[in-house]
Amino acid sequence: MLNKQWTGLLTATLLYTNVSATVWAQGDIDLTPSSPQRNVILIIGDGMDDQQITIARNYLVGANGRLLLDELPMRGAVQILAIEDKLGGKPVYVSDSANTATSIATGEITSRGRISTRAGDNQIFPTIAEIAQQRGFRTGLVSTASVTDATPAAFAAHMSARLCQSPDLMQEVFYSDVFMGDCAQETKAQGGPGSISEQLAESKLDVILGGGSQYFMPLTEGSTSSTVLETARAAGFTTVASAAELADVASVNRLLGLFSPDTMPVRLRGENGRKAESPEASWLNSIHRYLGDVTQPAAMVCEANPDFSGMPSLSEMTDAALHILDREESPGFFLMIESASIDKQSHYRKPCGSIGELEQLNEALASALAFAASHPNTLVLVTADHSQAAQLVPIDSLFRSFPIPIFTPGKLARIETPEGSLMAINYATNNFSAEEHTGANVPIFGNQEAIGRVPTFLSQPEIFEVMRDYLRLD
Amino acid sequence: MLNKQWTGLLTATLLYTNVSATVWAQGDIDLTPSSPQRNVILIIGDGMDDQQITIARNYLVGANGRLLLDELPMRGAVQILAIEDKLGGKPVYVSDSANTATSIATGEITSRGRISTRAGDNQIFPTIAEIAQQRGFRTGLVSTASVTDATPAAFAAHMSARLCQSPDLMQEVFYSDVFMGDCAQETKAQGGPGSISEQLAESKLDVILGGGSQYFMPLTEGSTSSTVLETARAAGFTTVASAAELADVASVNRLLGLFSPDTMPVRLRGENGRKAESPEASWLNSIHRYLGDVTQPAAMVCEANPDFSGMPSLSEMTDAALHILDREESPGFFLMIESASIDKQSHYRKPCGSIGELEQLNEALASALAFAASHPNTLVLVTADHSQAAQLVPIDSLFRSFPIPIFTPGKLARIETPEGSLMAINYATNNFSAEEHTGANVPIFGNQEAIGRVPTFLSQPEIFEVMRDYLRLD
Repeated sequence: MLNKQWTGLLTATLLYTNVSATVWAQGDIDLTPSSPQRNVILIIGDGMDDQQITIARNYLVGANGRLLLDELPMRGAVQILAIEDKLGGKPVYVSDSANTATSIATGEITSRGRISTRAGDNQIFPTIAEIAQQRGFRTGLVSTASVTDATPAAFAAHMSARLCQSPDLMQEVFYSDVFMGDCAQETKAQGGPGSISEQLAESKLDVILGGGSQYFMPLTEGSTSSTVLETARAAGFTTVASAAELADVASVNRLLGLFSPDTMPVRLRGENGRKAESPEASWLNSIHRYLGDVTQPAAMVCEANPDFSGMPSLSEMTDAALHILDREESPGFFLMIESASIDKQSHYRKPCGSIGELEQLNEALASALAFAASHPNTLVLVTADHSQAAQLVPIDSLFRSFPIPIFTPGKLARIETPEGSLMAINYATNNFSAEEHTGANVPIFGNQEAIGRVPTFLSQPEIFEVMRDYLRLD
Repeated sequence: MLNKQWTGLLTATLLYTNVSATVWAQGDIDLTPSSPQRNVILIIGDGMDDQQITIARNYLVGANGRLLLDELPMRGAVQILAIEDKLGGKPVYVSDSANTATSIATGEITSRGRISTRAGDNQIFPTIAEIAQQRGFRTGLVSTASVTDATPAAFAAHMSARLCQSPDLMQEVFYSDVFMGDCAQETKAQGGPGSISEQLAESKLDVILGGGSQYFMPLTEGSTSSTVLETARAAGFTTVASAAELADVASVNRLLGLFSPDTMPVRLRGENGRKAESPEASWLNSIHRYLGDVTQPAAMVCEANPDFSGMPSLSEMTDAALHILDREESPGFFLMIESASIDKQSHYRKPCGSIGELEQLNEALASALAFAASHPNTLVLVTADHSQAAQLVPIDSLFRSFPIPIFTPGKLARIETPEGSLMAINYATNNFSAEEHTGANVPIFGNQEAIGRVPTFLSQPEIFEVMRDYLRLD
């Protein structure tokens, strides 16, 4: 293995020496033969903990099968860190996608809901994408969520609250009449950076692909005629809005693709849209838990989600992004790719949805690895931002010998797998309409380039450091 | 690091060449200088998934801290495999400690509850310990459970059902009047191997340390005067029954230590013995889930469990086992060490108990690594057998902006951590008096010897193969 690695490095050095000598002579970049173009492809599976991975593996390739993820040569674990929303705040043991993406993007620990700003005083943390841009690297963000959602936002925007996704959401945000927060002090009029969609439109990003067109429809703050989308076009973004347009797009310099109003529809769903349901105990069971019986939710298959039709897949978006980011004249690129709805479908107790989005992540990984195979100085990392509610539980209780009804107090889905078994998935973190995240450390995977660069255990801020060091941004 | 590794190997080779030339010339063992004594120390954290590890890390060393586990240079993931109880049975996605220990010990996949026997026809699978014994290796089992419990049993016994732990349990086992199974066909009278404790007493093991003295009290089958313990003594085991006796034991050849009637008491417990409890919703909330309020279980600290007093720690048992197993005249040893009650305390919804037993595992790992530091050809592996019910959930719900009572439908413990934060742990796999296991793949860790030998993703049967190959038992 060592020999292979060294052969690869040697090949890469030989291949890239000419390019670096002719192109990079212009700048202040290291010209030694060991410094050709360098790229980082960071793939984030939102909420993709080991429960989610195992559930998807069992369904997609069988319990004895292996996902492409499983074949990667480097694997470790990442500790998730958050603090209270004040300077020097104490640890908070369960995170959200905003503070975790902030840590990965900036190397800093912050509080839940924040987009690359400091807990307590809202100081702006520079992101890996912004630092790379300053050194001439090209940068891109791809997500199946709205591109203004927490994970992509934290790589290119700064905001005290993740909800402030568009100019109209900077004042007060309500959900079912409940006040959710505001970013009134962060409008441009107040000297702030403006909403997340405005920050993206005015960013130096070269590629932005995902959902969230609704956040680009309002007028840009201070303008009486230009929507945020038009502001992005004026800044040089070519825009596309469908898989067909994405497939036909020429080799443009900058691309903004928004394929749905908000989160993109997912690939798979439960039979007839079913999700996890409550087991139904008989009347007698309400008298005493040892009495009566229980009817578990009926088994179901996963099926194609009709709403996914016409959407570009995550791997199609990845291929398009790689095509645009890879330019001879640049020192390399940083690309973040998020499969967002592993998490979102788990909040909604929809295991088939999560499975399909984990499949999408694996396909995007295949695209990334294919690119890396022909571009050897490409670090490919795959990780999750936090763990999630779903638990793979027994179809038959460990305690089934006892003649009493045993069932989860939460919601349960029983899925027929292609290998002919039943798989039970439990959601029971709360009684609300959306589940909670959980706090377990999450996996990290890497290609050959990650070996020796990514330790077997690290914190999320250290992922930033690995990427920064790989791109030599110090 | 590479240099260190090579220096270590070189040192080892120099140190061991003389020994191997003089001792191994008797047998058919490889005499090349690269083949000195070889040892495997396998540490199993029962139920030690990433939720359990993160909960323990947060409590024991803080969210920014690192457990000794985290410092190991090799980390991967292990897929858990089980099948229905018939030949060619379909996959079962959640396992128990019996079938998983069978896979690790024998390289074979079986059904839940089985001790190193084949699903469907009860064929005996040879274990790594038995194969190693045939080649002259010394072997030992250490557990905080009864040594007849599933995990240790699967390394040295063979039985259709894990419950058949002693001669009196071979016929019919009842629990609260519920028939749990029998092993009537596996008595010696029926031509079988006899109960698990009898198999251990008559085994070739050199060290057996843990709980379970009650299973050695019945008369050995067919004897009118000899208990199983006496049978063990007659077979050459020195026996001890307390930490003091263990500390004082001479360098005996074979040692059986039984320190409690069944599972050994654990180190930590919740304040005044408390465990996870149900949140208490107000009366109004029973009318509609949006109404009323909820009282979460009161926060608590973890405290020393008084019942642990006088027990040897897992690391003390490990040190004793290593002292007895390490003999110049043997080609090496195989030692399995189990921290059993990470799992058992999680079944009982006692997070402090699990935390303390994970601490014990870390201390045993320190003992193993100290041994390996002076015995370079020692492969140290740490893994879990299956994942468990506990989930680290938010202290403040992600959805706390909504003015409705949000709480888990299961049981919750809120623990004050030494770094001054609160940590919430949820148990909600079922409504029974003991939680279910879960099905996620589990971590595996290894010392420097594991690098290049243990892939980043493997199945439990492949752990057997790694150990077999390391000890050159092919």
